[in-house]
Amino acid sequence: MAYELYYWDGIQGRGEFVRLALEEAGADYIDVTRQPGRGTGAMIDIMESESEPHIPFAPPFLKDGDLIIPHVANILFYLGPKLGLAPKDEGLRHVVNGLQLTVTDFVAEVHDTHHPIDMSLYYEDQKQEAKARSAAFIRDRIPKFLGYFERVLRRNPKGANHMVGDALTYVDLSLFQVIEGLNYAFPKAMTKRKAEYPGLLALHDAVAKRPKIARYLASPRRLAFNEGGIFRHYPELDGVG
Amino acid sequence: MAYELYYWDGIQGRGEFVRLALEEAGADYIDVTRQPGRGTGAMIDIMESESEPHIPFAPPFLKDGDLIIPHVANILFYLGPKLGLAPKDEGLRHVVNGLQLTVTDFVAEVHDTHHPIDMSLYYEDQKQEAKARSAAFIRDRIPKFLGYFERVLRRNPKGANHMVGDALTYVDLSLFQVIEGLNYAFPKAMTKRKAEYPGLLALHDAVAKRPKIARYLASPRRLAFNEGGIFRHYPELDGVG
Repeated sequence: MAYELYYWDGIQGRGEFVRLALEEAGADYIDVTRQPGRGTGAMIDIMESESEPHIPFAPPFLKDGDLIIPHVANILFYLGPKLGLAPKDEGLRHVVNGLQLTVTDFVAEVHDTHHPIDMSLYYEDQKQEAKARSAAFIRDRIPKFLGYFERVLRRNPKGANHMVGDALTYVDLSLFQVIEGLNYAFPKAMTKRKAEYPGLLALHDAVAKRPKIARYLASPRRLAFNEGGIFRHYPELDGVG
Repeated sequence: MAYELYYWDGIQGRGEFVRLALEEAGADYIDVTRQPGRGTGAMIDIMESESEPHIPFAPPFLKDGDLIIPHVANILFYLGPKLGLAPKDEGLRHVVNGLQLTVTDFVAEVHDTHHPIDMSLYYEDQKQEAKARSAAFIRDRIPKFLGYFERVLRRNPKGANHMVGDALTYVDLSLFQVIEGLNYAFPKAMTKRKAEYPGLLALHDAVAKRPKIARYLASPRRLAFNEGGIFRHYPELDGVG
């Protein structure tokens, strides 16, 4: 039975980290809200279900038969071994999950650059605070997170082609997406800083060239970044750090 | 060999979610930075190690022999089965992990009520923005998160004594801590709202009365909440929602 992915239609958002894993593995999956006749209503029905015992707090969530699994890192921890994108060793699986949860935290901070005060308001209603938060994000947080991932990559005892072990895991795919998103949202800051992260940039480029990922990126299934998503390009937030 | 927990000394913080699980299980563990002769330096040594292949981004992290596991939800996912605090069924383990990751997101939002702009600055330097963010947090986010957890609890097919299944899991302990922390940080808002969450309050009280938890809470190992932690009581941020 095909995996069912539920996420907001029209944006890459957090769903994209799951899509990249499913696409790389060539897995049979349905991006439910983009199916004609189903749409976002099919997702809301599950979230507001009165009969479903394990309702998710928010999308994305994965449905595998009767099992509903919410949260990107949780979905990837579940799918990783099934898709051949996780280490065999149990301890290393928790190392990969730890890295994925650091990606999760970073992505939440990316979101808060444009929504620092109130996520129920528009960006335009918190623009001044967004400028202050983005300045701190570019100055302190991008170097802290990317510097960390670069160190982990270079220190991998199995070589710097992958974050963990000697084969591709889902966190490699997620870091491709992080670099891709930062390049979109903060092109000036990233252009200035990118020479500091040669390992991550090489990993990004290697992922982009993988045959299934390259086909996916060129397909209509890969939506463009836009200002409804997590990574948003507002030129006034993009400093040089 | 004893588990080693590494976290900032002097605060409950995120480390407390792990401590509660270790204490409930009566596990043999060392709270490393509180040991005479070790202190916070022992934690920083690992984070800045040049030889350790899997350095954590931030505390808390758990050391089990050579394995280093960062992030609260990841530590609890790892420890849960070993401590008898996770369901036997693999799918339900991912349900518990999904709930724990929702706790993680909520706790990050609690942190941002006092640090909405720049976590390298003091609270006093972002107090106006903290007031605005706290107002939105009390108005929208507390009801959204607690309302969700209350629904999940009441809908548990095995009964509303536990979040998942018919036995205690680590996410029950974490929700005790969430309620405890909110009562400390936002007593006015919580007093007004608490009648809406009878199931969560009953769960909180039941956890507090468990013999090992009660002994722990009365011991010097349980630090008091304070304004260096995640849950901080600033009266000016505590509205009635």
